[in-house]
Amino acid sequence: MSHELDLDEDLKLLLTQLKRLHYKLREHTKKKYKRINPFAEDLFDWKEKGAFWGGKNVTVYDSTTISGDVTIGDHTWIGPFCSIDGSGGLKIGRYCSISAGTQILTHDTVKFSLSGGKCEYEYAPVTIGDCCFLGIHSIILKGVKLGKHCLVGANSLVNRSFGDYSIIAGVPAKKIGEVRVEKDDVELIYFNRSDSNKSSR
Amino acid sequence: MSHELDLDEDLKLLLTQLKRLHYKLREHTKKKYKRINPFAEDLFDWKEKGAFWGGKNVTVYDSTTISGDVTIGDHTWIGPFCSIDGSGGLKIGRYCSISAGTQILTHDTVKFSLSGGKCEYEYAPVTIGDCCFLGIHSIILKGVKLGKHCLVGANSLVNRSFGDYSIIAGVPAKKIGEVRVEKDDVELIYFNRSDSNKSSR
Amino acid sequence: MSHELDLDEDLKLLLTQLKRLHYKLREHTKKKYKRINPFAEDLFDWKEKGAFWGGKNVTVYDSTTISGDVTIGDHTWIGPFCSIDGSGGLKIGRYCSISAGTQILTHDTVKFSLSGGKCEYEYAPVTIGDCCFLGIHSIILKGVKLGKHCLVGANSLVNRSFGDYSIIAGVPAKKIGEVRVEKDDVELIYFNRSDSNKSSR
Repeated sequence: MSHELDLDEDLKLLLTQLKRLHYKLREHTKKKYKRINPFAEDLFDWKEKGAFWGGKNVTVYDSTTISGDVTIGDHTWIGPFCSIDGSGGLKIGRYCSISAGTQILTHDTVKFSLSGGKCEYEYAPVTIGDCCFLGIHSIILKGVKLGKHCLVGANSLVNRSFGDYSIIAGVPAKKIGEVRVEKDDVELIYFNRSDSNKSSR
Repeated sequence: MSHELDLDEDLKLLLTQLKRLHYKLREHTKKKYKRINPFAEDLFDWKEKGAFWGGKNVTVYDSTTISGDVTIGDHTWIGPFCSIDGSGGLKIGRYCSISAGTQILTHDTVKFSLSGGKCEYEYAPVTIGDCCFLGIHSIILKGVKLGKHCLVGANSLVNRSFGDYSIIAGVPAKKIGEVRVEKDDVELIYFNRSDSNKSSR
Repeated sequence: MSHELDLDEDLKLLLTQLKRLHYKLREHTKKKYKRINPFAEDLFDWKEKGAFWGGKNVTVYDSTTISGDVTIGDHTWIGPFCSIDGSGGLKIGRYCSISAGTQILTHDTVKFSLSGGKCEYEYAPVTIGDCCFLGIHSIILKGVKLGKHCLVGANSLVNRSFGDYSIIAGVPAKKIGEVRVEKDDVELIYFNRSDSNKSSR
């Protein structure tokens, strides 16, 4: 009995309408795009969000947070579940893919927590060059500078800087190969062609 | 002063009602299930979402996206923060657990990004057999075929195929053991019983 | 034609108002905090959510789920995209940072899934001491006990217990150093100062 949901008429109506709206938007998205989105991703527009922050043809999912001093280059795609933290200053280049769950941090609270709140937060800027692909759940820590055309493997933890055309992967990330960009093609050249180096994305 | 939130009467009312609805639903969920959900997970029903996509007794959290050609077997559970991408074709078996944050991809934009938009997206189908357990944040890349009764360790990156009853883990994932399914029990047999091989989930 | 979104007047109005509310809240958040949040994070208050569950000055993001028997110490911060599962019993200390995407589990469905639903769920309690920093996407499995002032590296999988002042990282996590807390400072002492051991956060 105490587990009954007890709503007044106004809230019953709102809940009913939110569900009806969800079902209508979901139906539309499924018919048009053959997908089901989280409710909020159906309500709002990814490119509108990118434009609101600033940047031409930039995509940012609703579930992603952007904060602080962040500039994002044109045509960059930022997926769901990301934290794009510019509290210490962050520049992201053009044509980047920031895959789902990527966390780019320009601060940390490591010493703050470990000291029970006595130490301060720490900050350092991050730069991501043009045409970088950051794999799913990759983590970029404060102070990192990535060159252009870098490929960061999924699940990597990047805690130091790498130059242009690097393929990096691992925890912590190491350089495992090089990207070669030809006229209209891209070649991924791994230093060691053993199985374990195919892990880069 | 410029930081004051400035809402007209309609929006004030809507915000108030959304909060009241949230608090009521949250109270109900806490009393009934001893949990607090994200707002959207309280609004909608996980099994209704699974049924809408197609599949009997399938659970899909609101925050998870399903897209493209995806079939999901009966009794499969798909948690929050997942991307279930069937743009290249995806079949998921029965009784699977797809843990929180799992990303199953049948396409990638690696060369598209690295080339600054000159190369095309790439696609390949994925199959997940019946009774597979995909650990938290596991990533399944395009072209992978997993057999039945496989156990994929948390944080794994799976970039090649594995047969039935495999225990796999790591970045990239390797086979580290075998699943033995008895009448009413399951035994996990690791190839090397050292500490590092207990990592599988 | 069949791809047109077809809403009645009530739903058109609701959708319009949700968008207007989103834009207003977003504008306010951007001006005041220089950030853009997911819609739901703008609607509700992180500290109100923490207080609702119980705990003084506790932060819990909307996208995070808390369930079961969970106690959370004062001043603890729990970011977005986390699962804080106390179905098997969970205690989290004071002044902890639980970074984005952290999953703390006191149950698993490994054998349930692998057996096609024949085996039961399994449970074991977890304890996290005071002043612990859990890095992004870290995973704490059932049965783990972490001491005070521990630092858990990003992307780690913790499947066994560690004492006070441990620095741990990896899949599965191993002890790679020690935290030294001085009067107002914290020193991180790694066992091996090679590059690979700087991975701890």
